[in-house]
Amino acid sequence: MKDDGSLLHKWLCDLFPLSRSVVGPGIDQSLEYLANLMGTASEYLNYPSGTIVNGWKIPNAWKLNSARIEDLLGNVIVSTEQNNLHLWSHSAPFEGQVTREELENHLLTLKEIPEAIPYATTYYKENWGFSITYETYNSLTETAYRVFIDTLIYPDTLKILEVVIPGTSKSEILFSTYLCHPSMANNELSGPVLATSLARYLASRDNNYTYRFLFGPETIGPICYLSDHVEALKNTVVAAFNLTCVGGGDEWSLLQSPSGSTYSDKIALELFKSRRMEFKTYDFLSRGSDERQFCSPNVNLPMVSIMRSKYHEYREYHNSLDDCNFVSATRLQESLDFYIDLLTLIDADGVLRSKVLGEPFLTNYFDYPSVGGRVDNSERSDYRIASQLIAFANDVTLVDIADRIDYPVLKLLPILEKCVAFGLIDVKPLKPGRSSYADESI
Amino acid sequence: MKDDGSLLHKWLCDLFPLSRSVVGPGIDQSLEYLANLMGTASEYLNYPSGTIVNGWKIPNAWKLNSARIEDLLGNVIVSTEQNNLHLWSHSAPFEGQVTREELENHLLTLKEIPEAIPYATTYYKENWGFSITYETYNSLTETAYRVFIDTLIYPDTLKILEVVIPGTSKSEILFSTYLCHPSMANNELSGPVLATSLARYLASRDNNYTYRFLFGPETIGPICYLSDHVEALKNTVVAAFNLTCVGGGDEWSLLQSPSGSTYSDKIALELFKSRRMEFKTYDFLSRGSDERQFCSPNVNLPMVSIMRSKYHEYREYHNSLDDCNFVSATRLQESLDFYIDLLTLIDADGVLRSKVLGEPFLTNYFDYPSVGGRVDNSERSDYRIASQLIAFANDVTLVDIADRIDYPVLKLLPILEKCVAFGLIDVKPLKPGRSSYADESI
Amino acid sequence: MKDDGSLLHKWLCDLFPLSRSVVGPGIDQSLEYLANLMGTASEYLNYPSGTIVNGWKIPNAWKLNSARIEDLLGNVIVSTEQNNLHLWSHSAPFEGQVTREELENHLLTLKEIPEAIPYATTYYKENWGFSITYETYNSLTETAYRVFIDTLIYPDTLKILEVVIPGTSKSEILFSTYLCHPSMANNELSGPVLATSLARYLASRDNNYTYRFLFGPETIGPICYLSDHVEALKNTVVAAFNLTCVGGGDEWSLLQSPSGSTYSDKIALELFKSRRMEFKTYDFLSRGSDERQFCSPNVNLPMVSIMRSKYHEYREYHNSLDDCNFVSATRLQESLDFYIDLLTLIDADGVLRSKVLGEPFLTNYFDYPSVGGRVDNSERSDYRIASQLIAFANDVTLVDIADRIDYPVLKLLPILEKCVAFGLIDVKPLKPGRSSYADESI
Repeated sequence: MKDDGSLLHKWLCDLFPLSRSVVGPGIDQSLEYLANLMGTASEYLNYPSGTIVNGWKIPNAWKLNSARIEDLLGNVIVSTEQNNLHLWSHSAPFEGQVTREELENHLLTLKEIPEAIPYATTYYKENWGFSITYETYNSLTETAYRVFIDTLIYPDTLKILEVVIPGTSKSEILFSTYLCHPSMANNELSGPVLATSLARYLASRDNNYTYRFLFGPETIGPICYLSDHVEALKNTVVAAFNLTCVGGGDEWSLLQSPSGSTYSDKIALELFKSRRMEFKTYDFLSRGSDERQFCSPNVNLPMVSIMRSKYHEYREYHNSLDDCNFVSATRLQESLDFYIDLLTLIDADGVLRSKVLGEPFLTNYFDYPSVGGRVDNSERSDYRIASQLIAFANDVTLVDIADRIDYPVLKLLPILEKCVAFGLIDVKPLKPGRSSYADESI
Repeated sequence: MKDDGSLLHKWLCDLFPLSRSVVGPGIDQSLEYLANLMGTASEYLNYPSGTIVNGWKIPNAWKLNSARIEDLLGNVIVSTEQNNLHLWSHSAPFEGQVTREELENHLLTLKEIPEAIPYATTYYKENWGFSITYETYNSLTETAYRVFIDTLIYPDTLKILEVVIPGTSKSEILFSTYLCHPSMANNELSGPVLATSLARYLASRDNNYTYRFLFGPETIGPICYLSDHVEALKNTVVAAFNLTCVGGGDEWSLLQSPSGSTYSDKIALELFKSRRMEFKTYDFLSRGSDERQFCSPNVNLPMVSIMRSKYHEYREYHNSLDDCNFVSATRLQESLDFYIDLLTLIDADGVLRSKVLGEPFLTNYFDYPSVGGRVDNSERSDYRIASQLIAFANDVTLVDIADRIDYPVLKLLPILEKCVAFGLIDVKPLKPGRSSYADESI
Repeated sequence: MKDDGSLLHKWLCDLFPLSRSVVGPGIDQSLEYLANLMGTASEYLNYPSGTIVNGWKIPNAWKLNSARIEDLLGNVIVSTEQNNLHLWSHSAPFEGQVTREELENHLLTLKEIPEAIPYATTYYKENWGFSITYETYNSLTETAYRVFIDTLIYPDTLKILEVVIPGTSKSEILFSTYLCHPSMANNELSGPVLATSLARYLASRDNNYTYRFLFGPETIGPICYLSDHVEALKNTVVAAFNLTCVGGGDEWSLLQSPSGSTYSDKIALELFKSRRMEFKTYDFLSRGSDERQFCSPNVNLPMVSIMRSKYHEYREYHNSLDDCNFVSATRLQESLDFYIDLLTLIDADGVLRSKVLGEPFLTNYFDYPSVGGRVDNSERSDYRIASQLIAFANDVTLVDIADRIDYPVLKLLPILEKCVAFGLIDVKPLKPGRSSYADESI
């Protein structure tokens, strides 16, 4: 069961107006919306506000009722009714008249994009503030303004929504995504809606690997989750993907793992090559999302991010231009297609080993010119490719072999499936710690 | 005892007319001819027709008495009296009149080389056919022809001729070659006659390593042999060479092992460099001979092929132009010289280790300027080279050191021999699984 | 306590006139001069003349009283009163009249530098000889000359001066230097005076590692020392430096270890990069000093030489132009500064490991923009660099991380120190055999 890009776009537009933060009703409603779509069991993990987790304090819930700046005549300058990015996330309640000078300390603008409202937060410092366009900023000529901020800050629980789709093997593929951002579409509603669609797809079929999806707030979410799941993940995860920025921008991007050589890195590269896609590669030095937690030294999971235009690299990033128009149904469809290819490939891949001593009698299985001695060595017939596949099926992955024989991995996959069906190749699931195969092994 | 290239050429011309196939009198007589030359004990291994070996069925013997196409007036168009390549190998007996249209289904020509008769086989499908030149093909203007094929197909045994020349060490160097092809000289009579000469040479001297030579049919021969010898070979073989295409063509070629980094690969490279020879390197992806079996995943022997012009890469390949003129005594002599250098080097090589703590007092062993403090650091004196050799004799091979210090391995060999005689370096035989030394180890 | 370059230059000038050799009063007085400066305990190791050590015979002591060539009228042509390089080191006593032809067999000149007296020795062959300038050589027009050589050769003991400065860890940093050369300044008095200054510096502070300094004659000195200390060194040494040619020439040079990838190699590279210095790299093939012993196969210590212009590579090498003017106080100061940076870095380095699960809450420790969501990813703030450091603190060294994140290691050091103080990173001393970290480990 594969969803359509326009359905993903509808979900995204439904979620867009909610005022999400790390903890609070905005993210809770968003998670519940996605949980209802999932088509399989899901579970909430709860981490109470105020708990210290590995040096981080779980914030209180934050609820935005409304906030605005007025001039002294009562004319509304900006209001969260227009766009909830106007108020800095976690702004404390406030009401009062302030001079323009005082107000300036609580304003943020984006001079380089005069029509955009920048995204800002004040999670860990009690404060309040407004983000306004540079155009609005220039119109503030009065000497004083009135500020109304109706927010609630109160203890609650940080929530992680977890979906596990069991497979034949206990080895796991992990997908992590986050939705603590308020009204922004590519970063970050595209990841959660794509993750939901992938979970629906996997739930509708039988799988070799177990798939785990995590939805929650960025950074503190994985930190909480890892605090009580790190050992379990280390024992099972063979590939991991951070789902972010998958709905907008014209480019494709790969943020590599620290080593750049895990199975997750390699499958991304081979899939890009196989699909003849141009893409940019970013070293782990340019990281900026939840791989910061999952690839950290005491966690060391093999995680990469396969994105459209990367966070920090596109104009609409972290401002009000990242809206439902920036993310299109077409882009979501393309990303879904890519990731379904990824899942198809990964679920069939593993540690490949020839079951034959020497070459098999391939003529039994694949078409061969009936008059021998006349083989065109360069031909790319199934016969020849199967022969290459078996020749290198020496405890490496299909992804490794695609790289070694320089053949598109998606075209190699049906040939592998035939070889497995014919009893010529055995595929064992990847195991943690074996997910990275150095080139020299073949 | 080193043979002359012209002697090898004579053997080759003696064997040329025999009508060889995988099983049958042609290959049996050829093997017997070589066994009689060997100058040391040899043994036949027998594998009966019809036996299934790793999914392959050992064919029946095939005996060609005669075959021809005539026109209806009795004029002979082509006949195996002229050239036994005219009949497809393993053609079934047949006699009868056929229309030109019917005949066309049983004809093969080489349009791109109009004067050549292509080599063809029909081992695994009961059929018959003729290979004719494109020139002859164009002259077939009659509406019907008469075909006479007198062949015999009957159960017999596939034979492998095995020659083992024991050395001080049980570690083995393996040479494999094949002669199932009918009247073609470079591919494949040059390999068997060179192998015979190498065995004669080794049998006439004392050796450190044990040398094993295998002669039989291509592909199915090694598959049979491996079926009951694979574990023994894995426990002993430290370098392996497939001998093919060593008599013709102007180029030199190296077909690498799957990893390209075994000891066999390295010694080939260093020997080419040391002899200042130009050569082409072919990745294992371009394989096409018995390395397909010996390098397959469950065998994994360190085999390469050091050839003149590679199969598939020269015009005369697999057609009647690959005759006794294409292979010259000079080419055979050059190949023999190369391989004797290879044997000389390999037999003296092994795992080298300095026996000294720090540098030895080399002045005792090699000439040194008698006034100290005035050494020209760049000079390539034996003194200086011995010093480099000992400095890197750190559990690596002479071939590794030649590469590391960028010095011709054949010039390094006599210096190693002196260092061994002086008790400065110890050489232990290579062991299986230690035959590949990664560069980083030095 | 850090010395001034001019103080090092004074020591060097004090030592310059002494007639040093491998064994004898010249080197003994020189060692004693340095021992008195050391400011910490030192010890002499004694190896008697005539002892055979690993195939080398320890020479007798050699004492030069005076030597000269006169014409028959008593005019002095050359005399060791002018320069002790005039007499070949270890020349036997001799007095007599010789023809010019006979004299020629005992003369050495440097035609390419006509004003220079070349350095020569005759340690292992009983002989005598004079080194003279090419200018003097051309003036020898008489038919006979008188030669007076007053030297003493007698059994004594070869001495190694050893200084050990204990640290918290038993892991050691080894410095080796030598001073068996007569009146030459860069090669080799610069090494010993710098080593002395480094020992004084280390003795004045607390250290994490143990530091060992060896002073003695070149080649035979380390051979003697290794004969009874090799196992101890193998068990403790994690980095090693040969101190030579550190006082003169405009270039900086690195002579690499055999592998080129030990911790010693890496720290040299990162330090050069961090200090924005140009330098030349020399492969171990160009070795020519005591790394020949310490890096030999059965010793295998991770030693490099960080030099100014390398021996053999500058005009003044091994002749009388290598004097107290060639080595300047400024050059000695620059080398001292470099090596003190090296010691500062090495003593703080080790195997780094993050103590945090995931990323730490860095805002507690480093300045961070108070409004979140607006981080400039490219900025090189301490916050960002600390984040990179912790992200890669995965059982590798600070030097490895500097290379991986391409950030100057000397700027990284204070950030590491903060991270250690904050309890974010743990640093364990390097252990022998772990001193080389391959790039692929990060």
